[in-house]
Amino acid sequence: MCEANAYLLENDGKPGKPDEILLMEAVDKVEPDEDGILLVSIFGEQKFIKGHVHSLSLVDHKIYIKQTGE
Amino acid sequence: MCEANAYLLENDGKPGKPDEILLMEAVDKVEPDEDGILLVSIFGEQKFIKGHVHSLSLVDHKIYIKQTGE
Repeated sequence: MCEANAYLLENDGKPGKPDEILLMEAVDKVEPDEDGILLVSIFGEQKFIKGHVHSLSLVDHKIYIKQTGE
Repeated sequence: MCEANAYLLENDGKPGKPDEILLMEAVDKVEPDEDGILLVSIFGEQKFIKGHVHSLSLVDHKIYIKQTGE
């Protein structure tokens, strides 16, 4: 299986490394939904995030999400 | 390895299924870059796309990209 973990990127633009907060493990699908995105895991869990896909690092199994409107 | 193929979504919003155009195989990283995104494959190939990540389907190894400013 080639799912990835979704992380919320925080502290962006400030000095130091951005913080990564784990949002969901084993993400299969990411779909646009209203003013955000819907994460769906391989187990069928769903989580809506008011944000967008910032970047991917698939060999590391990582999806980075950034919140909008902060 | 858990890389995915990147597809450009076309014909969105029109009747019928959106067309998928293969942009790059074996994508590892997707990074924001200026007014678009940079795709980097596991072989180190790079491709800049003036667009954004539309959606993901990782179990199917698919990254969908939508162009901006069309």
